[in-house]
Amino acid sequence: MQQELQLSAEDAAEDPTAAPGTVRPGGRTARTRDAVRDAVLTGLAEHGYPGLTVEYVAERSGIHKTTLYRRWGGVEGLVTDALDLAGEDTWTPPDTGSLDGDLRALAREVTDTFGDASAAAGPTAFIAAAFQSERTAEALRGFYAERFTRCETVVRRAVERGEAPPGTDAGAVVRAVSAPLFFRAVVTREPLDAPLADQTAAAVAAAVRAGAYLPAASPEPAD
Amino acid sequence: MQQELQLSAEDAAEDPTAAPGTVRPGGRTARTRDAVRDAVLTGLAEHGYPGLTVEYVAERSGIHKTTLYRRWGGVEGLVTDALDLAGEDTWTPPDTGSLDGDLRALAREVTDTFGDASAAAGPTAFIAAAFQSERTAEALRGFYAERFTRCETVVRRAVERGEAPPGTDAGAVVRAVSAPLFFRAVVTREPLDAPLADQTAAAVAAAVRAGAYLPAASPEPAD
Repeated sequence: MQQELQLSAEDAAEDPTAAPGTVRPGGRTARTRDAVRDAVLTGLAEHGYPGLTVEYVAERSGIHKTTLYRRWGGVEGLVTDALDLAGEDTWTPPDTGSLDGDLRALAREVTDTFGDASAAAGPTAFIAAAFQSERTAEALRGFYAERFTRCETVVRRAVERGEAPPGTDAGAVVRAVSAPLFFRAVVTREPLDAPLADQTAAAVAAAVRAGAYLPAASPEPAD
Repeated sequence: MQQELQLSAEDAAEDPTAAPGTVRPGGRTARTRDAVRDAVLTGLAEHGYPGLTVEYVAERSGIHKTTLYRRWGGVEGLVTDALDLAGEDTWTPPDTGSLDGDLRALAREVTDTFGDASAAAGPTAFIAAAFQSERTAEALRGFYAERFTRCETVVRRAVERGEAPPGTDAGAVVRAVSAPLFFRAVVTREPLDAPLADQTAAAVAAAVRAGAYLPAASPEPAD
């Protein structure tokens, strides 16, 4: 019965009359990968990494277990590919016309995500899984490195507009805007709200203007 | 054999000739709690929360399983009590004589901890466990709330010295100094070093001086 369900769902995924929105560029392979990614995310959110099994992903995605083992190897491969897929989106950082506005919009994206249980489930599940799987930790590092590289545009534009000193450490700036919000969400377990996002963004913008993110601004370590 | 080991270790804990340094104020109860805490920390670091069992803690601590169940209820009780115990230390924030120095010293404590695998094991294990246990998450929230309340002294002293404007949000300031470091350690999985700690501290100090942590400095949310 379980296997029949899997087969029939897999057949459905090949159906060219599938509902609009379920077909991504790339056809059946991409659809399969999406279905597997969704099942992995649901499984992580429901059971955590220790409880995630290939069997669960097979049942939930409708993709046969043999296919999952062949293409993803196992649970770690499934989780890291879901992260890789998340990194392939077309997200671009906000472009409000000012450094303050862009940093505030970046911070608000974090509070919007972690303030909404269903939006928070995916990132939280990956962050949790990284504690238990070195391959997941490596994939998470890659995901955020790429994501923050995109964010650095915000600082480059601010430098071009004369709002930030040339040489400002863009990577440090965009991480500093997100960090106090992630910190409360996943470490100190405190609530997030929009005023906190705004305060965080305003503080980082003030530090940027003061030149605190210029390489020379860091004091030399004491000898 | 296993049970004998446990009994003999439990007997040893009652031995008044135990090695110096193993006796805390409070006598046998405190020693038992310490032994259990150490076993919980080792177990979390070695096996993670999902792999931690009362049996493991019993074997490792030398405290009989029946005692553990009676006094701590189970794994969640053991983990949350270990966190409570961690919060009972006498740690006080640095007092270097300046806001910049104090924030830098606070940041360096974080990079020193997460830059050293054995020092990082405890906090990392608790942060990871909080994803899988609501009671642990609650205990972790309490631990950090209390810890950051202690840190606020740094900002109060800065206000008294005229280095920070009166009304500065001390809780936000001390979290902002730690957050980018924890963020790299447990979310983006990037390396930490002393220059990063110094940059983080310098940025927060600059934002404090600019008044970015005053309540009125946060822009009103857009309507």
